[in-house]
Parts: sequence; structure tokens; C-alpha cells
Amino acid sequence: MALFESKFKNSLKTSVPLLDKIMHYIIKRKGKQMRPLFVFLTAKLFNNVNESTYTAASLIELLHTATLVHDDIIDEANFRRGVFSINALWKNKISVLVGDFLLSRGLLLAVENEQYQLLKIMSTAVKEMSEGELLQIEKTRRLDITEEVYFEIIKKKTAALISACCEAGAASTNAHKNDILKMRSFGEKAGIAFQIKDDLFDYTQNPLIGKPTGIDIREKKMTLPLIYTLNNSDKKTRAFIINTIKNDSKNSKKIEQIINIVKEKKGLEYAKNKMELFVNEALKILKEFENNESKSSLINLVEYVVKREK
Amino acid sequence: MALFESKFKNSLKTSVPLLDKIMHYIIKRKGKQMRPLFVFLTAKLFNNVNESTYTAASLIELLHTATLVHDDIIDEANFRRGVFSINALWKNKISVLVGDFLLSRGLLLAVENEQYQLLKIMSTAVKEMSEGELLQIEKTRRLDITEEVYFEIIKKKTAALISACCEAGAASTNAHKNDILKMRSFGEKAGIAFQIKDDLFDYTQNPLIGKPTGIDIREKKMTLPLIYTLNNSDKKTRAFIINTIKNDSKNSKKIEQIINIVKEKKGLEYAKNKMELFVNEALKILKEFENNESKSSLINLVEYVVKREK
Repeated sequence: MALFESKFKNSLKTSVPLLDKIMHYIIKRKGKQMRPLFVFLTAKLFNNVNESTYTAASLIELLHTATLVHDDIIDEANFRRGVFSINALWKNKISVLVGDFLLSRGLLLAVENEQYQLLKIMSTAVKEMSEGELLQIEKTRRLDITEEVYFEIIKKKTAALISACCEAGAASTNAHKNDILKMRSFGEKAGIAFQIKDDLFDYTQNPLIGKPTGIDIREKKMTLPLIYTLNNSDKKTRAFIINTIKNDSKNSKKIEQIINIVKEKKGLEYAKNKMELFVNEALKILKEFENNESKSSLINLVEYVVKREK
Repeated sequence: MALFESKFKNSLKTSVPLLDKIMHYIIKRKGKQMRPLFVFLTAKLFNNVNESTYTAASLIELLHTATLVHDDIIDEANFRRGVFSINALWKNKISVLVGDFLLSRGLLLAVENEQYQLLKIMSTAVKEMSEGELLQIEKTRRLDITEEVYFEIIKKKTAALISACCEAGAASTNAHKNDILKMRSFGEKAGIAFQIKDDLFDYTQNPLIGKPTGIDIREKKMTLPLIYTLNNSDKKTRAFIINTIKNDSKNSKKIEQIINIVKEKKGLEYAKNKMELFVNEALKILKEFENNESKSSLINLVEYVVKREK
């Protein structure tokens, strides 16, 4: 990971002073780097971490950072929370351009290293991610989401990239085509479980404020616990939930009520069970590979996905 | 162009309904398609329009559309003009994602057709364009721009893509490396002239309102006519211009005064002369190629750049 970080830093060099400052900030606030970990561990599963693996990890981290920066664009949610300012509007344009810069840096990295298979994997992932986010926006506006559409959204917006990590990690070792596809499928299952866990956080104790945040509900994001609850409630309860989300989402008491209804109706258990199902499917795929150190690490990583407290 | 348009339309297909609606709108409001024209005419200069040329033109138009969509992000300028609304904020997130989708479609098109040289040309262009826009934002905030920096900005934010059109057009015909570089340089000169012309519009009669708009000045964008004027004014005039832009940019009378100062100091003539210089350099490069129909068309296209009334 140290070698990776120094290579990653190098890829962020630019001659534009403003951009240079922002890149510095990006390097400093780096996250848990779960995605590069998936790349390296998958490559190690095939006993072969090489130059292409590093390129893949860097490209994916650049791309992931680009989507985080693009996600920073202010939207209705920020507006409601009142952090909106002229300065935030400046930030808007800058965020879009910095995201585009990161994206192009990533592509150039792959092109310069002639990693064309990696390019295909990543272009597909970017396409799926933007489609997934747009599908979510569309459904958010209409509040008519089904479980089927929920899974389509999280498969595209989240699982596509983790799936690409594992596919690219395997491809970097010139693994057999079938093995590459298996690892791609492994990443997809793990990614879906990761997003279900993320969505569950909206309903569970937040250590900072001592209660669930309910932010997703306020932002009209219908996730699995709520979708299940709506499908298993009487007409009156359903109407209360939908009306609150549609017209009264600033009412904290009512949002709290919705969270309690979801808990009563066992929406959280339902989502947790689904998550475990995907975890088990992911682990089942791993069983087909020989035991080694990185296989154990991959198992740990998947278990971390469902056990983490944030 | 008809064949190109049908291929381009095809590349915009998606399974997400919201996205599909937006793509439909994008196809309908299509612009003058100057960039694909540069690609096709350059390829025809080498007597060889082929499948790769179509891929290049589609990728470039997708990319150009992506940057237009990303440019639609609301910023300080929109805010000032009062078109700002919650709905505009929705649009913000959507614009970013639609832009990313278009970008990834373009990349996939190149990857699927194994156009790796094209990918390198385009990734470099995207990187330069975002760097150019960010440099402009940085300088806009500080109001300390020199002529040298102005040319660096327009070379990156505008000329890089037109240059990429000509480079990709030539490369699609497997032209000789030197000829590819010549055409890339031709595109750069034409692109710089195009942007100087665009910047001049801020100072010339706008048929819709009967006078210059001065929008660039209000938005603190320092372009060539103004930079020249600042360098050739006395201390008092310079202070008046800088103070107005910094603190009083909503004062239409003072903005009009600045426009008049620029005209008096011959800032427009200066910019026009510079533009002609780049046009001549571009045409000089063309002279090195044999005469044919598309060479005449390229000459016409470059002359259109400087003669157009918008």
C-alpha cells in the first residue's frame, strides 16, 4: 500500500496552482482505500501483483475520488441544511472540473501503460455508476421504487465499481477468463452487501447524535428497509409514510415515527438477511479458489463490510 | 454528416428512462457540429474517411457535449442573473451525472473499436480542458491575468479540443506522424483564433439587446481586449477598471464605460490582429498539403471562425 500511495500521489501532479492545492487536500483526506485493497488482494489471490496491478489500483482510486468530488456538488439536500452560499457555488464549478481532471488523469495512466482491458472495465464501470445515480434520482422524485429497482440501482451505483476492482485485479495477473468473471461476480455480491449495510446506517444509532439520522428518508431516498416496510404495511400506514416523505420531510418527529415503524415491521432484519445472503454468495465464490493468505484477507474484507460500525 | 448523425444517435442509447429523455433533448438541440467537421475534413484531406474517422467524430462530439452539460452547472453567474431555483439544484446533480455518462459512452466507443491512439488524444484533451477552465477560475478570482496566461488558458480550454479533432482526423487515416503533428498544430491555431473571436463578442453589438453584453467583464473574466487595455492605460484608468470589476460589477453604466475605454484604447483592434495572426499561421500549415476539395473546405471553416456573427 505504501508503494501504491507514492505512485498515486505522482499521478496527481499538475501545473495549475489551484488544482495542485486541491490535489494536496485530496491526498491528505484519503479514505479507507477499500477499493485498492480489493484490487491488490484479488491480484494476490492469483499470486501475482505486478505493474499492471498498480496501474489498475491507481486508476480506480482516481476514478473513485472523481465520483466523490462530483458528489460534492451542492444539491437540494445541502440547500435544506442551510450550508448554501455564493462560495458554495464557486465550489460547484470547481468540483465538476476537478472531477473531470481526475477522470482524465486516470484514463491517461491506463493509456500510457497500454492497459486496454483495464480501460474497458473502467469505462463500463463509469457508465454504470452514472446510470445508477440517475436512476436513483428519477425514482427519488417519484417515490414509486420497487425492491427490484432498488437492487438495480445499488448494483450500478456502488457494486459496479467494487466489481470492477476485482475484475481488474484478476485481469492484471492474466488470470483465466473464467476466473476473471468469477472474481467480477464476487466483487458485485460484496458491493451489493456493502451498499445495503450503508443504507442500514440511516436507521441505526449514530454515535455523534445518539439516534438514527434519517437523512436518506428526508432526502426521499427509499432504501431496502423502507421498501420492505411499505410492502408489508396496511393502507393507512403506507399513506402516512408516503405523505410525510413527500410533504413533511422536515418534521423530525414524523421521521422518527417512520424509523420506528420500519423497526416494528422488521424492515431492518429483512435488509440484514438480504445482506447476509449476498455475503454468503460472495464467500461461496471464493471457496472455488485455493487457500492462501490473500484469500483469508478477502474473507476478512467482506466480513468487515457487514460488521463495520461506519 | 447524415451517416455520422445516425451513428452518434445510436451511441446515446440507454436503459434509464430519465437519461433517455435527456439524450433525446441533446440530439434535438445539436449545435453547429464544428468539431466533427474538423475531424471529417482533416481525414478527407488525406483522402481517407473510414470507420475510425466516424468513431473519432462521435467520441469528440460526445466529449464536447459532456463539457457543455458540465458547463450548465449553476454558478455565481446564474445566481446573479436570478434564474436560480431549487429545481436548478436538482439540475445540477443531473448535469454532472449526464456529463459523466456521455464521457464514459465516448470512452467505451473508442475501447470497443480498439481505437487506442484516439483514446490517448482524447484523454489528453480532457485533462487540458479541465486544467484550462480551472486556471481561468483561479485567475478570474485574482484579476491579475497577463497576456501570457490568457493564451495558456484559451490554448487549454478551447484550442486543445479543436487541435484533438484535427489530430484524431489525421490519425484515423494512418497519416504520416509528421502530418498528424502538423494538423494538430493547425487545429491549435484555429482553436485559439476561435476563442479570441468568442471573447470579442463581449464587446460588440449584440443583435438581441442592441449593445454589447459585457457579460465576461461582469463575471470577472479578463480577456485579451481588456488585458491589452489595462497594460496600456494610466494608473487612474487602470484603478477605475479594476475597482469596478472587483466591487461594482452590477453597475451597467460603469461596465459600459469600461467597454468604451477598451474601444478607445484600441483593445479590439489589438485582439483582432492577434486573431488574424493565428488564422494566418493555421492557413500557412495547410499550404504544405496538396490542393483538394477538403483543403478548400478547411480554409473556409477557418475563415468562418473569424467572420461569424455568433
